[in-house]
Amino acid sequence: MKNIVQSVKGTRDFYPEQMSLRNWLYGVIRKVSESFGYQEYEGPFLEKIDLYAAKSGEELVNQQAFVFQDRGGDPVTLRPELTPTLARMVAQRQNELAYPLRWWSFGPFWRYERPQRGRTREFFQWNIDIIGVNNPEADAELLAVCAEFFKAVGLTSDKVKLLVNSRRLMDASLARFGLTGDLKRKAFQLIDRKDKLSPADWRLYASEQGLSEDQLAGIEGILADKDLWKQSEELSRAFALLESCGLGDFVRYEPAIIRGLDYYTGIVFEAKDLDGGRSILGGGHYDNLVAAVGGDPLPGVGFAMGDVMIGFVLEKYGLVPKFEQTPAQVLVTVFDESRSQAAFVLANRLRQSGLRVACYPEAAKLQKQFKYADRMGMRFAVVAGPDEEAAGLITLKDLRERTQETLSVADVAEKVRALLAQ
Amino acid sequence: MKNIVQSVKGTRDFYPEQMSLRNWLYGVIRKVSESFGYQEYEGPFLEKIDLYAAKSGEELVNQQAFVFQDRGGDPVTLRPELTPTLARMVAQRQNELAYPLRWWSFGPFWRYERPQRGRTREFFQWNIDIIGVNNPEADAELLAVCAEFFKAVGLTSDKVKLLVNSRRLMDASLARFGLTGDLKRKAFQLIDRKDKLSPADWRLYASEQGLSEDQLAGIEGILADKDLWKQSEELSRAFALLESCGLGDFVRYEPAIIRGLDYYTGIVFEAKDLDGGRSILGGGHYDNLVAAVGGDPLPGVGFAMGDVMIGFVLEKYGLVPKFEQTPAQVLVTVFDESRSQAAFVLANRLRQSGLRVACYPEAAKLQKQFKYADRMGMRFAVVAGPDEEAAGLITLKDLRERTQETLSVADVAEKVRALLAQ
Repeated sequence: MKNIVQSVKGTRDFYPEQMSLRNWLYGVIRKVSESFGYQEYEGPFLEKIDLYAAKSGEELVNQQAFVFQDRGGDPVTLRPELTPTLARMVAQRQNELAYPLRWWSFGPFWRYERPQRGRTREFFQWNIDIIGVNNPEADAELLAVCAEFFKAVGLTSDKVKLLVNSRRLMDASLARFGLTGDLKRKAFQLIDRKDKLSPADWRLYASEQGLSEDQLAGIEGILADKDLWKQSEELSRAFALLESCGLGDFVRYEPAIIRGLDYYTGIVFEAKDLDGGRSILGGGHYDNLVAAVGGDPLPGVGFAMGDVMIGFVLEKYGLVPKFEQTPAQVLVTVFDESRSQAAFVLANRLRQSGLRVACYPEAAKLQKQFKYADRMGMRFAVVAGPDEEAAGLITLKDLRERTQETLSVADVAEKVRALLAQ
Repeated sequence: MKNIVQSVKGTRDFYPEQMSLRNWLYGVIRKVSESFGYQEYEGPFLEKIDLYAAKSGEELVNQQAFVFQDRGGDPVTLRPELTPTLARMVAQRQNELAYPLRWWSFGPFWRYERPQRGRTREFFQWNIDIIGVNNPEADAELLAVCAEFFKAVGLTSDKVKLLVNSRRLMDASLARFGLTGDLKRKAFQLIDRKDKLSPADWRLYASEQGLSEDQLAGIEGILADKDLWKQSEELSRAFALLESCGLGDFVRYEPAIIRGLDYYTGIVFEAKDLDGGRSILGGGHYDNLVAAVGGDPLPGVGFAMGDVMIGFVLEKYGLVPKFEQTPAQVLVTVFDESRSQAAFVLANRLRQSGLRVACYPEAAKLQKQFKYADRMGMRFAVVAGPDEEAAGLITLKDLRERTQETLSVADVAEKVRALLAQ
């Protein structure tokens, strides 16, 4: 066993096959985002810790972010999420931008968590936000983006659901039991643990947090009331909009959805794989994020989806397409040592006619060269030996169909395209 | 003046306009790389410092790399270059891969250097390598990739040149003056400073480094001999191959090109902007890189090009295309409060027919909504008021041509496509 330098735990190598998957996902994300009129943007990967201090939530910044000092002694962070960067970028050009602003992005993020199936420390994330609108139409639009993405990758509403709640509704409901301020935060933490603790442990945790029996009963009532959303104007309106677009099946009210990030103020949502319950994406409505980084207040709605869990879910359901690994359409072979320059020039000439062409870089047995073409998924090979040379022609071999034809160089590109189109 | 949280020095924000430029560059890079039969891959952005220890050269690792401890206490590096990662990835699957291996990549890198025009601390880099071949055809292929890239972006050979040298040729030439081992390294450093010091300071530096008068004269002779390449089989062969493809004008022998990275063993090259002399890309031939990270020896050739300097050069020559900022083709307006749901549904329906459609998210004066569409570069706006509703129709406004037409929803997509194609 060779002693190869190891990669960092929780990072991934993207060999061409994995890169094809990531590019495919990026392409679907682009198509869906752009179909709704969103523009692609990207922030830096390094940010100052202050940017997250305001609003990202304790756990994310203090326990999960990669924070370090650069060579100049300045503390920097490998971004754990994009929303604060978005807020900063908007704040910097707040008066020049036109609203509503619709932006999306797909790039790398880092969180120091325990790596497991569906989770890495370095991952890619789709972020998409609408900024400058404060109504349920904006919330519904982002939920529609999620649903259209699921449709685009073949995830039907019997496999995934968008679980939606409203922080405003929860605030009002909890306030009826005196759960405001710090007690409200404790109630949110309690709700978040509902599925993680046994019923007995959950009640114990509630009393340890200082919640009364009445308050606990109140919370249980809120969680049990599947019609509570009807009291929420924003939820009712968003659900109606999605229903009228035929996307209602993807959406479900779920009072247990709170979301950890401190900046959410209105609708919050998560998409879950119904088989296993894992969270695929999450997002919500915020009022004050741009103000939190130094701009004027601007509301927004957005969500983020990591590439690891969605990749895991798509694979589970057999929804990852089979990617053709075809680095080139044509391999130009080298007949013998004396013809390597001619092969190099021929490959160059075929490229000028628009083909993707690899040149075998040395004289070797032709069978070896054909085998290489075949293994690399290159369907055609071109041979130019003394016979062809004398006639000013070349031989084009179709390695898949096991046919061949001798023709002039000028005709190769057209022939290859015709055969590929068949 | 508002106090907005600052970004990290040497990083960049990619607003949609800058993102368009980066995507365009990535697209050209993809097209050129793929035309030569290269496959896209990507490594992790965090690597262990050991990976660079072997071969990357002192300065890069010890002075420029961002190195830090993660939360588990492990020392990690934000990758300053990709070649060691490539070597690791190849070493890990050395017996499964087919050679020659042609791989390319475009991703982020970090170096703690003083930011200046054409240089940032966080940047993107195109990397492209052929692995498993050890002949001048491989060197020439990579040089041809560079030249074809320049042609693709409109940089002609009177603006940029590929300056080429051979480490082997230099080793042999320097050895004739007793410059081997440590003295050879000193000679390389001296050559590297030729253009950075005055002639007097340069001679002083040579004698401080312990080089004799004869040795200095020998080096001056090597640097002055523009025909020295004819003694090099690999340079002669590579130049002949490029000449025969009509790319000879892009290439020039330049004895002062050494390249700082320790792993180069054969041909080395840099592309320079002839106006100003700045380096756009650099690369070379290596024999032992895969072995250095724990694999079996495998030769290769590759180069890397950062996005910042090429962007600067392209802008200087007016070669950056004008990007159309058109997030959507159509804006669906909201006629009044009572019709916002109908507008939402209409936008959704138009998207199903393949159009990129944004919906104005609230009822506002129509003029304001048209103005927004115009500002965002959306050419068409759709209006559905009471008159249209009664007739089961909608009005499609062409904001550029200042025309409008009332038609059925089913006909909108076809009409828009027809107008866009005109």
